[in-house]
Amino acid sequence: MHDVLIGAKILSKNEEIAQRTRKEFNQRGIFSINLVSSPGSGKTSIVEKTVERLKDRIKIAVIAGDIQTDLDSKRLKKYAIPVKQITTGRACHLDALMVRRVVPWLFVQGGVELLIIENVGNMVCPAEYDLGEDMKVAVMSVTEGDDKPLKYPSLFHASRLLLINKTDLLGYTDFSVDRACENALKINPALRVFETSCVTGAGLDTWCDHLEEMVECQATIDGQ
Amino acid sequence: MHDVLIGAKILSKNEEIAQRTRKEFNQRGIFSINLVSSPGSGKTSIVEKTVERLKDRIKIAVIAGDIQTDLDSKRLKKYAIPVKQITTGRACHLDALMVRRVVPWLFVQGGVELLIIENVGNMVCPAEYDLGEDMKVAVMSVTEGDDKPLKYPSLFHASRLLLINKTDLLGYTDFSVDRACENALKINPALRVFETSCVTGAGLDTWCDHLEEMVECQATIDGQ
Repeated sequence: MHDVLIGAKILSKNEEIAQRTRKEFNQRGIFSINLVSSPGSGKTSIVEKTVERLKDRIKIAVIAGDIQTDLDSKRLKKYAIPVKQITTGRACHLDALMVRRVVPWLFVQGGVELLIIENVGNMVCPAEYDLGEDMKVAVMSVTEGDDKPLKYPSLFHASRLLLINKTDLLGYTDFSVDRACENALKINPALRVFETSCVTGAGLDTWCDHLEEMVECQATIDGQ
Repeated sequence: MHDVLIGAKILSKNEEIAQRTRKEFNQRGIFSINLVSSPGSGKTSIVEKTVERLKDRIKIAVIAGDIQTDLDSKRLKKYAIPVKQITTGRACHLDALMVRRVVPWLFVQGGVELLIIENVGNMVCPAEYDLGEDMKVAVMSVTEGDDKPLKYPSLFHASRLLLINKTDLLGYTDFSVDRACENALKINPALRVFETSCVTGAGLDTWCDHLEEMVECQATIDGQ
């Protein structure tokens, strides 16, 4: 019971900081997404392909969360966009305070329209932590099994979008996209699903067009 | 700082319970492993293939940990071995107390020689929690990227064995087994690595023979 109370207190403090961050992001016209998945589902590749397609159309910044190493931010350096690495040490998720600390860095970049936060690879705890983002985007790869939404429901419940990634490997697994969607929609009927492959490029234009539209809608709403 | 102290206290209490469990397992000649990986690395398939190969040679019991659902324990029911599901609710890892609570169930099975604990799919927190097992076994699939040991070092540091799984998919990814091993051994030079595929069966006999040897060694040590 004691642990539950401590947990609730931490989450409530987190929520308070996240709300403040979200308000400031909205005031500055920054649309933000928080990518959450298991380790190795292809989050960094998704970020790379998204930046490649959208960087001449909208101004993007990336916050990359990892337990250790700055391998992810190094991969993104070549795109000449603002990238900040947050190394969490032992923490298995980013929290609102970690993101809060890099907000001043983000604001001096000027004119950022889309902030992509790549969370630590973990399907469990990141689902519980609001970072101040506009929406969570769940990523799962087809090699992980189509039962994942049932086994890790919090993430699918907390997300607005789902990317089913590595579809190039579909022929080599018993993963069924239909079954995965059915399982995911059982948890969250409002979830919008995209199928992507960073190897063949399939589905990436559709995903990026949708993301761009969301950025534009947000800008319209913020400007009103 | 407060959170760090709470964390240290929880881990110290966990350690105390785990030590007690380990002592009782050893007294009863039960060798136990704790399988840890990301969601979808193939832990349950590894357990199935291991049980298939070893169930007529040694008496096996399985504890399957999951956030939600009993899908994993259902998959194991067909082998007619003792299987216990622990559903953790929101917790992203098993802890020593959760395992402790099912110890009476385990002991009434009688004569169990090998206990396989399949942890919640998570590469981060399960590495920190001793459940009373003899050793942790890390599992990673080749679709997750060969940089995982550097990005999630705690698990590779805490494990004695590493299974590189889904090697049937090697030809369709840029994963290098050599690079993965090099990265894993940088973190833990004592790590013993097995390459496995539950689709082709490659490496499973080697893995199972090694596991059986460990069970026999433990029995000899316990009997002395």
